[in-house]
Formats: sequence, C-alpha cells, structure tokens
Amino acid sequence: MTDKPLFGTVAFIGIGLIGSSLARVIRRDGLANRIVACARSDATLEKAMELGLADHVTKDLQEAASGADLIVLCTPIGTCGAIAETIAPVLKPGQIVTDVGSVKQAVIAAVLPHMPEGVAFVPGHPVAGTENSGPESGFDTLFEGRRFIMTPPDGSDEEAVEKVAELWRRAGSTVDRMSAEHHDWVLALTSHLPTLIAFNIVGTVDDLESSTKQEVIKYSASGFRDMTRLAAQDPDMWRDVFLNNREAMLEMLQRFSEDLSRLQRAIRWGEADALEDLIRRSRDIRRNVIDAGQA
Amino acid sequence: MTDKPLFGTVAFIGIGLIGSSLARVIRRDGLANRIVACARSDATLEKAMELGLADHVTKDLQEAASGADLIVLCTPIGTCGAIAETIAPVLKPGQIVTDVGSVKQAVIAAVLPHMPEGVAFVPGHPVAGTENSGPESGFDTLFEGRRFIMTPPDGSDEEAVEKVAELWRRAGSTVDRMSAEHHDWVLALTSHLPTLIAFNIVGTVDDLESSTKQEVIKYSASGFRDMTRLAAQDPDMWRDVFLNNREAMLEMLQRFSEDLSRLQRAIRWGEADALEDLIRRSRDIRRNVIDAGQA
Repeated sequence: MTDKPLFGTVAFIGIGLIGSSLARVIRRDGLANRIVACARSDATLEKAMELGLADHVTKDLQEAASGADLIVLCTPIGTCGAIAETIAPVLKPGQIVTDVGSVKQAVIAAVLPHMPEGVAFVPGHPVAGTENSGPESGFDTLFEGRRFIMTPPDGSDEEAVEKVAELWRRAGSTVDRMSAEHHDWVLALTSHLPTLIAFNIVGTVDDLESSTKQEVIKYSASGFRDMTRLAAQDPDMWRDVFLNNREAMLEMLQRFSEDLSRLQRAIRWGEADALEDLIRRSRDIRRNVIDAGQA
Repeated sequence: MTDKPLFGTVAFIGIGLIGSSLARVIRRDGLANRIVACARSDATLEKAMELGLADHVTKDLQEAASGADLIVLCTPIGTCGAIAETIAPVLKPGQIVTDVGSVKQAVIAAVLPHMPEGVAFVPGHPVAGTENSGPESGFDTLFEGRRFIMTPPDGSDEEAVEKVAELWRRAGSTVDRMSAEHHDWVLALTSHLPTLIAFNIVGTVDDLESSTKQEVIKYSASGFRDMTRLAAQDPDMWRDVFLNNREAMLEMLQRFSEDLSRLQRAIRWGEADALEDLIRRSRDIRRNVIDAGQA
C-alpha cells in the first residue's frame, strides 16, 4: 500500500513473535516512517536489526519511548507496570501507548495509573500466536483473519482508540471491543484454561520414570501430541497470564475440577450414560466451532 | 502389488473409519480374495457396497464369520465379548479373529474365553484415527507411518500373530508387541486421558449460558479449538474405552488431579516459580515429541 503512514515513529518494547509480526506488517504496508525496537538482550536487538524490523534499536526504555507516536508493549504481562513507570517521565501529550497482553484487567491496573495527562493508553489483545517465540519467529500474516480485542476503559481518547484499531485492521484482523473484565473471563475459557490443562497433562507425563516416558512420546500421535503443542509456548508469557488472570482462572479451574470429578466417578461406577451424554454434548460444541469458521 | 493374497476371505464386523480404511488397503493391494462386511444398520452396509469395500454384506454375525480366514472386530470395545460369543459356534480351527480396540486387557478378557480350540485370537490396536466416523470417512493411507500394537497373550499361535502383523505392515504401519497391561497403561496416558480431558473442558464450556458460549466459540482459535477437535470423536467408541480401561484411567486421573490442584494453589498464592518450572518441563517434553518424529 502507498497510503499515508498511520504513525511517524512506532516503538516496540519487546520484539518477539507478536511484536516482530506487527513490525513486519508496518514495514510491508509503510504504516510508519520509523520503527524503534527495545529489548533486554543484545542478541534479540541484533536479530531485529538483521531482519530489518527496526531502524533503531536500544536497551534503554526511555530512549525507545521518547518521541514515539505509538509505543507498543509486547513483553510478558507482569513487566508492563514497571515499564510504564519507567517511561512515564519522558512521555508527552499526544503519544499513544498500547499493549498486546492476553489479560486486560491486570495490565490496565498496572499501566494506567502511570500515564501522564494527555497520553492515551489503549489496551488490546491480538488473539493469535504460534508455539514459537523470538523476532525470527514472526511473520506478516500472523494476524490475518484473526480477532483483535480492544478493552479501552471508560473515558478513553476515542481518536487514539481508532488509530490503534486501524493499525490492527491493516494487519488483517477483525477488531472487537468489550470490557476488560469480560475479555478476561472469555479468554480464561478459550485460551488460558486449555493451555494450563495442556501444561498440566504434559507435566503429569514428565513425572513418570524415563522408560515409560519414552514410550509415551513414541505413541503420542493419539491425543497427547496435541497437548504438547499447546504446552510448548513461551514460559514467561504464560506464567504471567496465569498469575494475572487469577480470579477467572480459579473460577474456571474449580468448574473444570468439579466436572472432572463427576467423570472420574462415572468411570469408577461404570455409568455409561453419563459418559455418553458428555461426549455427545462435546460433539455438538465442536460442530458449532466448525460452523463459526474457527476450525 | 500383485503378491499372493494373504487371506482368502476377510470378514469385517463393523465397517467404520478403521474397518473401512483397512478394507481399502486390502482392496488396493489385493491382500484378500473376498471381503465380507457386517454391520447393524442397513445404511452402513449399503454405503460399504456402494464404496466397493465389500463383496458381500450381511447383518448376520454368524453368516459373516462362517468360513472367513480372518475376522476383524471393528466395533466399540464393549460389544466384542457378545460378538465373540455369537460367532463362536460357527468358528472352525484355522480361522483367525483379531480386533482393533484401544483397550486390550478388557477385550482379551471378553473375547478369549469364547474362542474354540484351534481358533487364534490376535488382539491388536492401530494407533491411528481421525475425528470422523463411518465407512465413507476411511482412506487407505490412514495407517501409514503409524504404529500397530499387538498384545498376543502367552501361548498364542505365532503363525496367526505373524499373518496379522504382516497385514498391518502392508497397511504401512510399524508393528510393536507388548503386554496388554502395558499397552493399556501407555495408551491411558497418550490417548485416553488427553481425550477425556478434552471432553471435560468442552463440557465445562457447554454448561455456560448460551451468550457466553457463543463468544467462547467465536474466540476459540486460541487453545479451545484444539480441545474441541480431540473431543469430536465417536461417542460409542470412547464411552467404551473409558469404561474398559478403568484401572489405568482412575490412576491417571488421580495423578492429573493432584498435579492440577498444585497448579491451582500456585495461581491462588502467586507462586511464579512453580508455574514457570512446570511450563519449562512441558517445553522439554514437546521437544522430545518433535525429536521422536511424532509432531
């Protein structure tokens, strides 16, 4: 595209899978005049330069944030509060800060209080990803056909919200808007709980003696393999997701455990009808997922 | 191939995904002179004839089994005992009965006592499948590159065991041999537990009020989708698997629940290290699965 750029300078704080994919979109479509990348490790920054993802790289948060029209936080959720606090002194009215975290209430609570007057914080979550991480794992079609959920608090700067929405539309996503609380509840079910369960089942296998473990891996094609794929994602990111979506996770885990106890009882007492009923209901849900174009 | 057929007549009791896929292999490579299919429903039998999977179809178990060199039980595990009892009076020495069930101890206990002197029962399990069922869902490459696990009891007719093994090798599978007890334990972990967990999590979502449920489906791309795929399999088959691998399932569920309680506690009390440790271990297992060529 040869449209006028949406932004002068975009600064990425963190340039892993999500950040580097968005940087690729910005490069491809000329959506910004200049990209700055900030990360903690030299290796990441060198890789970002080598891949042509940034015009300038730095380990200094304030240097990255200074003068950027849009600052995109792409680090694990638990770091967002401290980053916001660090960059706050250099922020000026008119700048926009956004994020890509999978939990929204905790990020808003951590970041918003640090935002100076006139600086907009637009919390967002691109519902997309792969099991890979790092700047080399990104690609410019990661967000195509996916959802970008925005959860701007009441009284947000609507012009800033619209600019961030437009960026994600250009990346190919459908933009949805909802409350942060609702987002965290829905994502707990669709993403956080399934991923935790996958980690847990893989962990259960890891506790086996090594000869059995090798066999489980050998025969993993029938179900376990799908669990390991879900369980292969970035550790820092997921640790923070689980800890920061605490209330919804605890509620969902409680429901899940109750349901699983009922199944365990059905197996112990040979209750065929209870098992069959559950399995048939699951099939219906699967059909709904297919009908919704998500399969 | 134009080799001499392995069998004169092969009779399939049940002609769904697994049975029809094996029938396709037999047809493709000319591994039998004649295929007989037996099922309970007219629609299934008509479909099998229409697809050219059988030379003769019947709803009568004894008619199907009479004179067949190989009888393949491809019905839900829970039906195998009654089928064996029904066909026993027409079986003659030299005939081979085999099965494809995902649980082996229960099938052996149900079938073996009915086998007349001189009739070999060769229990087997092709570790392969899709979420689809019925004769139209089969395909002749389903077993290629997969494992076929045989669990013949001590004192089995080794010639019969080898003939069944050869059939599955021709289907493209690697043939492994182990005790039925060991099979049931390994499969509980690699297949039965992950599938039960998937059913359970999908069931937990199904209990939500319908507006939330619709949203969960809308955002299912991030984890939940993979669970619904695992949970979309044949209800009758899985009901029987869970009920018939009772001991291993209860043991695995117990371990899984203990581990999940530990995670729940880590989330409640903000124990970042415990979560991170689990996530990192899961990643290592995923790497092992990839290294084993199962991903």
